[in-house]
Amino acid sequence: MHFDIVTPDASPRSQIQHRIDRKTKPVGALGRLESLALQIALIQQPEAPAIRSPQMLVFAGDHGAAKAGVSAYPQDVTWQMVENFLAGGAAINVFCREAGMGLRVVDAGVAHDFGVRDALIDAKIGPGTENWLEAPAMSLNQVERALQRGRTLAHELADHGSNLLGFGEMGIGNTASASLITHCLTGARLEQVTGRGTGLDDSGLARKLAMLEQAVARGGRPSEALKVLSEYGGFEIAMMAGAMLGAAEKRMVLLIDGFIVTAALLAAHRIAPEILSYCVFAHRSEEPGHAVQHTHLGVEPLMALDLRLGEGTGAALALPLVRAAVGFYNDMASFESAGVDG
Amino acid sequence: MHFDIVTPDASPRSQIQHRIDRKTKPVGALGRLESLALQIALIQQPEAPAIRSPQMLVFAGDHGAAKAGVSAYPQDVTWQMVENFLAGGAAINVFCREAGMGLRVVDAGVAHDFGVRDALIDAKIGPGTENWLEAPAMSLNQVERALQRGRTLAHELADHGSNLLGFGEMGIGNTASASLITHCLTGARLEQVTGRGTGLDDSGLARKLAMLEQAVARGGRPSEALKVLSEYGGFEIAMMAGAMLGAAEKRMVLLIDGFIVTAALLAAHRIAPEILSYCVFAHRSEEPGHAVQHTHLGVEPLMALDLRLGEGTGAALALPLVRAAVGFYNDMASFESAGVDG
Repeated sequence: MHFDIVTPDASPRSQIQHRIDRKTKPVGALGRLESLALQIALIQQPEAPAIRSPQMLVFAGDHGAAKAGVSAYPQDVTWQMVENFLAGGAAINVFCREAGMGLRVVDAGVAHDFGVRDALIDAKIGPGTENWLEAPAMSLNQVERALQRGRTLAHELADHGSNLLGFGEMGIGNTASASLITHCLTGARLEQVTGRGTGLDDSGLARKLAMLEQAVARGGRPSEALKVLSEYGGFEIAMMAGAMLGAAEKRMVLLIDGFIVTAALLAAHRIAPEILSYCVFAHRSEEPGHAVQHTHLGVEPLMALDLRLGEGTGAALALPLVRAAVGFYNDMASFESAGVDG
Repeated sequence: MHFDIVTPDASPRSQIQHRIDRKTKPVGALGRLESLALQIALIQQPEAPAIRSPQMLVFAGDHGAAKAGVSAYPQDVTWQMVENFLAGGAAINVFCREAGMGLRVVDAGVAHDFGVRDALIDAKIGPGTENWLEAPAMSLNQVERALQRGRTLAHELADHGSNLLGFGEMGIGNTASASLITHCLTGARLEQVTGRGTGLDDSGLARKLAMLEQAVARGGRPSEALKVLSEYGGFEIAMMAGAMLGAAEKRMVLLIDGFIVTAALLAAHRIAPEILSYCVFAHRSEEPGHAVQHTHLGVEPLMALDLRLGEGTGAALALPLVRAAVGFYNDMASFESAGVDG
């Protein structure tokens, strides 16, 4: 599959940087917000930067391996949490409301029939993946369908006026899937990228690691993104990767959340490295593999709040920082306009 | 002076923690936001936590030592930046607007006549402090007047319905003053708590350190808060300390910004250690002494965004996290109410 992502033109960089430097503050004094403003101004040139209709997409899917016990929670929690999202009672609902961010839930492959529901996008590829302990999680054809469906979703949101997408996920067992993907795509050892997910104890963690090693003994360590997703992915992870790629095609800002979302980005990045210019990394979670992913991509997230929830919560919490960066770039006075000695 | 600060009753702690733990998320998965929710629920008991009319107070004052060259900027920048605040063009204006936070500027002692102005509170103790290289910065009587004026200010805002104050400052030379205060009140060596402020180069930093050593040779290293403020303080720092103490008397949440604001808190904390229960530490700045202050107080700030601007900018940027913490505490479903397997 080909994605048509264009790296933002770097030629106005010094002009944008000069504008930032002439704001009424010492050069560099707004730290991370300055690089954020520069990044978004470059993405959105030649227009003035602005955040329009920011949308959170929470991709949900089930994992065959969940039945083997890779998570502290039973598989039914996936659909139960989707119901919680639809009822407005989850953390991501609260944080999106606080941040003024739209929220849509995408059923990429939950093993449950939701019927037709407001705010739920039915994009089901299948009722959960196969168990990667025994077989590839999905076929290459399913990977391609998931990528394409995600891409179309992002394009539709862009066409309706959104220029920022946050990415979140729900899927019992998907931390294990993300560990396998991260192992394949970063070269880090499994132990470095395997953590407690939503709350395994020591013996649960040891059991999970043994299962991941068993999976790799079966499926190997592919390096091609579609193959990796086919062996170890989740439908929600593959579709999220497609949505990320589609969003970057439309020059949207991508707000990247936790370990599982960043695993999807690793796959998207393997397909089209240009995507990185469009990504804002919201936070570093407690899951140890998250820092490995960030190091691999050469990026530094904005916050570290000891989160380990997923859903897109860290991304929603970071949106105010993005707004603040755009706000100071557009609305702060310069030394000249304010009559302050520079 | 006596401040009547009551440590919040800890008896409902386990009940509040239970409510947090039954939210639809793994125990502890919201990390720092969970401890924040617990803190604010304890402060505001028996009422449900809520952030009402949050106000940023930017205290401005001039420093006699500024004329000796402890800053990269000339002293006139203090009043020029106050004008910028009043015109709405500074970073703190932008960030307060984004965060839905009121902003008032307090003239605690700027060497400039502003006349009567909207959004400027005239609380001038004097037209700048004395130069602490040559004499105490202010008299003990001035310290007490500044503390009392700040306290009254906080009480008035509380009586008008605000239950959260953010603290910010403006004063050319006040990073040097904060270094001296931090040296006295934490026991750290001057080199550990002296940084580049808004932008000194290497030789400027060396000159600043030599001046601070000269000041300590003159004024010594007192440990009593009022004496420290008298020797090395600024009017804006002393008045801010009083406002912090007054806010804690009224059980308000205190949102603490950067190095200078935290220096004021060190003085307030020396006067009434109970104040700490009411403080939320927004961020760790680039100024090296800020981490020393946090370590001394035994606290960990929420963010580290490489800021070194002051004005209250980091505090304003952290308000959305405070709102998110209160939001999840009040509005998230529990496992029971959402029908999710816990």
